[in-house]
Amino acid sequence: MASVSSPHTGRRPGESGTRAAILDAARREFGGVGFDRATIRAIAALAGVDPALVHHYFGTKSELFDAALQVPVSADEIVPRVLAGDPDGIGERAVRTMLALWEDEQRQTVFRAMIRSAASNEQAAAMIREIITRQIVGPIAHALAMPDAELRANLVGAQIIGLMIVRFITRLEPLASATADEVAAAVAPTIQRYLVGDITG
Amino acid sequence: MASVSSPHTGRRPGESGTRAAILDAARREFGGVGFDRATIRAIAALAGVDPALVHHYFGTKSELFDAALQVPVSADEIVPRVLAGDPDGIGERAVRTMLALWEDEQRQTVFRAMIRSAASNEQAAAMIREIITRQIVGPIAHALAMPDAELRANLVGAQIIGLMIVRFITRLEPLASATADEVAAAVAPTIQRYLVGDITG
Repeated sequence: MASVSSPHTGRRPGESGTRAAILDAARREFGGVGFDRATIRAIAALAGVDPALVHHYFGTKSELFDAALQVPVSADEIVPRVLAGDPDGIGERAVRTMLALWEDEQRQTVFRAMIRSAASNEQAAAMIREIITRQIVGPIAHALAMPDAELRANLVGAQIIGLMIVRFITRLEPLASATADEVAAAVAPTIQRYLVGDITG
Repeated sequence: MASVSSPHTGRRPGESGTRAAILDAARREFGGVGFDRATIRAIAALAGVDPALVHHYFGTKSELFDAALQVPVSADEIVPRVLAGDPDGIGERAVRTMLALWEDEQRQTVFRAMIRSAASNEQAAAMIREIITRQIVGPIAHALAMPDAELRANLVGAQIIGLMIVRFITRLEPLASATADEVAAAVAPTIQRYLVGDITG
């Protein structure tokens, strides 16, 4: 995301624009060729800067990957939004919050980069695990104080990852073009059951 | 998969072994680096053959990709197995059939190659669409003669892809190590509802 200049950080004018350009280039490169094949040199070229500047701002390729693929969503924002209100509506709020977030083209780019990299790179796989277990889904599942909270978070994560792949990567129709209402009607009961329903048969 | 020599195909002795070695090398290469970066030269080297032989047997890189990533399952086998029996058990049969198939290490390799390639390659994305809509899930959804069969097939595909990613790619625990019984208890009701339940709210 393009960050605005932040005087209180002590950054020089122009620095935030350069950092944003590098992060954008990194997301495109990691998403296009995956972690292993991506190079600092190629990312620097895409951003129109010297490779040394990329190292200066972001360190190693692994550190740049972490910085670039930070999902630009705040767990502090999402978790309370999903938990607040009628307990019977938690599945629906989770699906609608997720769909609204992923309308953002840049988040889709980050997601594609993660999925592409996760299939062969342990760091990307670990990042997906981290999001599911600690950042977003895990806190929601734990807040509900149901037994098997870890398994519930895994199941919600699996459903959401699959839904996003079908919608944003394979673009399978009619699901790719379904409205938020249609997706919520179909998928919210699944999330609801995974979070608070009977999952042990 | 290593195919046995088939005298009725008229292949020379040794040919089927060579073809199997090339397909195995192709799956490893496509799974490791994705379609775009994989080369016939690298695949030939992995298989210990001349690149010209790869072209001779399989044609272009795209044709080799098709041949290598054919999921080694027969729709004619799976579809009747899922449809046969108690209609209330269709979700459970679908999940158990899928889990049994994916215990196979080679199918997991194919799946990783597909997912990795699908994030940046339209051919791989199209292959996943094809499996969901035409080969496996679509025929099951259509056989049940429910309204919205296409959307139902999409939803089942999304749930299964997500489950496989969590189990075989990100290896998220406890779901990655859950028994077939545990996974079926959690996921079968989802598949059952997507196939024959109310998905329109």
